[in-house]
Amino acid sequence: MSRRTVLFTPGPLTTDPRTRAAMSVDWGSRDAHFIALTAELRHRLLSLAGGDGTHVAIPLQGSGTFVVEAAISTLVPPAGKLLVLVNGAYGERMVAIARRAGIAVEALRWPEHQTVDPAAVARALDNDSAISHVALVHCETTTGLLNPLGPVAEAVARRGRAFLVDAMSSFGAIEIDLSTTPIAAVFASSNKCLEGVPGLGFAIVEKRAIEQSEGVCRSLSLDLHAQWRGFESNGQWRFTPPVQVVAALVTALRLLEEEGGPTARLARYTENFRALADGMRRLGFRLYLDEAVQAPIIATFLPRQKDSFDFESFYDALAERGLVIYPGKLTQAETFRIGCIGAIGVSDIGRLLDAVAEIAGA
Amino acid sequence: MSRRTVLFTPGPLTTDPRTRAAMSVDWGSRDAHFIALTAELRHRLLSLAGGDGTHVAIPLQGSGTFVVEAAISTLVPPAGKLLVLVNGAYGERMVAIARRAGIAVEALRWPEHQTVDPAAVARALDNDSAISHVALVHCETTTGLLNPLGPVAEAVARRGRAFLVDAMSSFGAIEIDLSTTPIAAVFASSNKCLEGVPGLGFAIVEKRAIEQSEGVCRSLSLDLHAQWRGFESNGQWRFTPPVQVVAALVTALRLLEEEGGPTARLARYTENFRALADGMRRLGFRLYLDEAVQAPIIATFLPRQKDSFDFESFYDALAERGLVIYPGKLTQAETFRIGCIGAIGVSDIGRLLDAVAEIAGA
Repeated sequence: MSRRTVLFTPGPLTTDPRTRAAMSVDWGSRDAHFIALTAELRHRLLSLAGGDGTHVAIPLQGSGTFVVEAAISTLVPPAGKLLVLVNGAYGERMVAIARRAGIAVEALRWPEHQTVDPAAVARALDNDSAISHVALVHCETTTGLLNPLGPVAEAVARRGRAFLVDAMSSFGAIEIDLSTTPIAAVFASSNKCLEGVPGLGFAIVEKRAIEQSEGVCRSLSLDLHAQWRGFESNGQWRFTPPVQVVAALVTALRLLEEEGGPTARLARYTENFRALADGMRRLGFRLYLDEAVQAPIIATFLPRQKDSFDFESFYDALAERGLVIYPGKLTQAETFRIGCIGAIGVSDIGRLLDAVAEIAGA
Repeated sequence: MSRRTVLFTPGPLTTDPRTRAAMSVDWGSRDAHFIALTAELRHRLLSLAGGDGTHVAIPLQGSGTFVVEAAISTLVPPAGKLLVLVNGAYGERMVAIARRAGIAVEALRWPEHQTVDPAAVARALDNDSAISHVALVHCETTTGLLNPLGPVAEAVARRGRAFLVDAMSSFGAIEIDLSTTPIAAVFASSNKCLEGVPGLGFAIVEKRAIEQSEGVCRSLSLDLHAQWRGFESNGQWRFTPPVQVVAALVTALRLLEEEGGPTARLARYTENFRALADGMRRLGFRLYLDEAVQAPIIATFLPRQKDSFDFESFYDALAERGLVIYPGKLTQAETFRIGCIGAIGVSDIGRLLDAVAEIAGA
């Protein structure tokens, strides 16, 4: 891999060289320098979400799924019941997490190409007063679909239930404003739109909700309440943090600010997506989703009917050119995915399109 | 921090520059190159423990505690009962993990400066046939004490119980040979004697034990059975791996082999410990433990009686010189700890001793 490899994947993704350079230091996890880095991390995450004063940021070791499980297992009390709004694999994963943890759970399902319908959510809540929490995936990485966060949040809040948002693939690019949208907890990971490296997730949780959650979680490692208390007591992580991953994420957050924040980042991703979708269409590849429900984060493409499409050889031919794409994850159709996120721009998309043209022909 | 900072900590610790350099690449987590790296990781870990043919290596995202919890929660079945042998904070943590997870658990306790007594373990097992699993911390990072792994393993095996070993602070330096010692699962992390960076743990589990553990774990993220099935099915991680941490650990494992394996590493650590203990004694600092039970991994020192010892200012004065030590974790006595592990040698220990002499006087 002597040439520059570019990842067109939904995370791990292509990071800025400055972000990777932040990993060249051995940090003592209980040292003052690292405690300051952790404080900066928590502060920047909270501010990005507009949660100052009302919420707290709680980073957690592990992949994104770890923090999803931590949030569900810590915040839904034994007498509670979770309703998961499902239109993709990550919604299904929340259902599986709750089932495994012995939490009462129900799912409301839509086809993978359709957004969650707030009116149906409202009806489900009106019909079942036992439901205490509702969980939604903001941007379904399965397809790249963007769910209607605001209207669902409103339907949930109006009925006095707590709203949990998996913002894995949206946080940092697509605005989530906790000062105007009623959300009990939003969670995401280091390695998607924040453009850090993987190894870390975080939840941004309403103060009242985290205060009330002591002793709820059946897992010691995934107990967000205890994790939060740890940070509050001495600024340190309860258990050994991935110090280099933390340092990389802090650098990535500084770079996000330098770029102009989520608005500027979304504009860049939108340009990437536009160039990709138009270029692929010219080459005969159609988007799986209707553009009205598509987020400019990751695009799912259908193979061309004229090809006897073999993903493995297509992938390998691109990979040989230093261009890494992503397999599909749909249950219904054979597809492949191309990410528009990471430290990449339209010139990288151009390089990818040239390679696709070369490999697949016009 | 312009000068070279050296960590005398039990992990995160000082790593080799080549290990940190391995983090400068963006790896696609589903790419063939990374799948090969994961296979090398699993193979090297298994071989180090002498588990080829009988055991499997299962890496897991998160800190060491995550894999301890994963092993306990996956391997102790609902009808099982865990006996934890406790002589430090990490033994207590296993008790807390089991309690939280709703697993039947009992503790057999010794003072923090005493090793676990195999005869007492044998008696406890003879007296309670409900105990199905016994857990031991090999080297207690709390103090630096080394527990008698072989004799305890034998006492447990002779009574037909399964033995779980937390080898967090010993794996890679102090020999653990699964081909001669009956152990159902041994677990450790990337960032101690293997000299990788933090962000990853792993369990090496008997094939029979992992095969029988389907559906036992109440946590989706920490389910070692599902994690293992994931690796076996397509060589990939079930959930996003910390790709840079994995790459760093593979490099660190190659460097361990280059150094001459665990035997050579232990010899270097022993030299470090010897230089440290002798030097500190000359400066008037006594080891907390009797040397007969002390592992050359991390040393706990008692403050000198003639000083009105203030750890914070001692720590800060060393840190200003780029030398990072570690607070004590004892329940009984005020102490501080100095690690002998990581990519450090006797010249680093000499630099530390000079600084201690300068700060504390003779």
